[in-house]
Amino acid sequence: MITIVKIGGNIIDDSVQLKKFLRDFADVEGEKILIHGGGKIATEMAASLNLKTTMIDGRRVTDAETLKIAVMTYAGWINKTIVAGLAKENCSAIGLTGADANLIPAEKRKSGEIDFGFVGDPVVEKVNVQFVLQLLKSGIVPVIAPITHDEQGQLLNTNADTIASVLAMALAKNNEVKLIYCFEKNGVLANAENPESVIPELNLQTMYELKASGKINAGMIPKLEAAFKAKNAGAKKVLIGHAAFISTIVSHPENCTEICS
Amino acid sequence: MITIVKIGGNIIDDSVQLKKFLRDFADVEGEKILIHGGGKIATEMAASLNLKTTMIDGRRVTDAETLKIAVMTYAGWINKTIVAGLAKENCSAIGLTGADANLIPAEKRKSGEIDFGFVGDPVVEKVNVQFVLQLLKSGIVPVIAPITHDEQGQLLNTNADTIASVLAMALAKNNEVKLIYCFEKNGVLANAENPESVIPELNLQTMYELKASGKINAGMIPKLEAAFKAKNAGAKKVLIGHAAFISTIVSHPENCTEICS
Repeated sequence: MITIVKIGGNIIDDSVQLKKFLRDFADVEGEKILIHGGGKIATEMAASLNLKTTMIDGRRVTDAETLKIAVMTYAGWINKTIVAGLAKENCSAIGLTGADANLIPAEKRKSGEIDFGFVGDPVVEKVNVQFVLQLLKSGIVPVIAPITHDEQGQLLNTNADTIASVLAMALAKNNEVKLIYCFEKNGVLANAENPESVIPELNLQTMYELKASGKINAGMIPKLEAAFKAKNAGAKKVLIGHAAFISTIVSHPENCTEICS
Repeated sequence: MITIVKIGGNIIDDSVQLKKFLRDFADVEGEKILIHGGGKIATEMAASLNLKTTMIDGRRVTDAETLKIAVMTYAGWINKTIVAGLAKENCSAIGLTGADANLIPAEKRKSGEIDFGFVGDPVVEKVNVQFVLQLLKSGIVPVIAPITHDEQGQLLNTNADTIASVLAMALAKNNEVKLIYCFEKNGVLANAENPESVIPELNLQTMYELKASGKINAGMIPKLEAAFKAKNAGAKKVLIGHAAFISTIVSHPENCTEICS
């Protein structure tokens, strides 16, 4: 079983939480992959440099300068901080983007009503599965930043939830895969006001009902869509839970949301 | 023969030159490794963020904020721009720091008269030679940023010339290694005012004489010391030449300086 864990911005922004998470993650048994998002650091850096960050439907609009900041913070500072942190826990890790070893080729998103700029949509069929498996076999943990490329020299910003989903889809073809989305809540909540209202099992119909009733916020929708895609493509288990409880989520998936096909 | 090429800041700062270099480098035959420095980008970024850059003997003094900028620009933007650029030339590359796969463990430099801050001196004996060879065997070109770590979670800034030398030293134990330092001159000059005064073969004694006579500038000394160390540790060939002529330097080392033991 290959365990793919995705962590988001909240945990990355909190160095104490991040250290605890990396200790827990280092202890996760078996082959594993870590995918991380960006968080506030890129936004703060952009603000320090007087660049404006534009978000549409929870996704960053990426002009050339914003891309540079994203690559610097995601693939540079955050990625290498995590790799060094895992090394401290005796977990040999390697920090990668989708450009490295042509891991995740992507297509620049076409401009429609909205021009998202330098944003890439990964091509599942082109994922370099062989290289990922080679690393895992060598006992090295891939740590993947949400940056891809178009194979023509252009780096592209890519949603980290999507990266996690695409990797799970590509690996699921010939491997057993468990995909865990970690964030700052215990799972998908039936009632956003009540942190105890975790939905233990979520199917597509319930998601659409929650979406229609406005109980799920806009930022959650792409994550859930990514989760369902991975599940439908053959991932054995897809779970959404709190980063602080990664150890228990991995072994006994309780107090989290399991995505059902 | 493993060819290790180091490029410096001048070429990185010039996107046209860099593209040409990457095309030439992609065409270099056999197993190869690229090591890059930082250049002006980090200094400019630090200036935009109102951080002051302090240099002593051609080396950057690295406080916590400076380290962050260094990791962001070297391991993030520059490293991944090069990797994506090589992918365009059908050269599968992987961007790494010394922290990735514990490639180049280092020791934080002890504070003496000067406190260099978060600066690491690589430990040659600890270089993960096996992983480098595994990548080369898979046809993947390692592209290495001048960042290392102390194995205790701390990233460290490290001189790129030193990284190139240390890798050459570690690999030379069981492999034939050619090390090429590329910069913006045709080689080591007998007379800094005359670009045609390239010294074809440089031994240690001549270097000391040039140093004593003040003909070599301060920034050049660490590069030459790194070059001599690699030569003395068994690198077959150590060359210093112009980045624009990498193709000819690799095949017919003319119009460049060869380091002699």
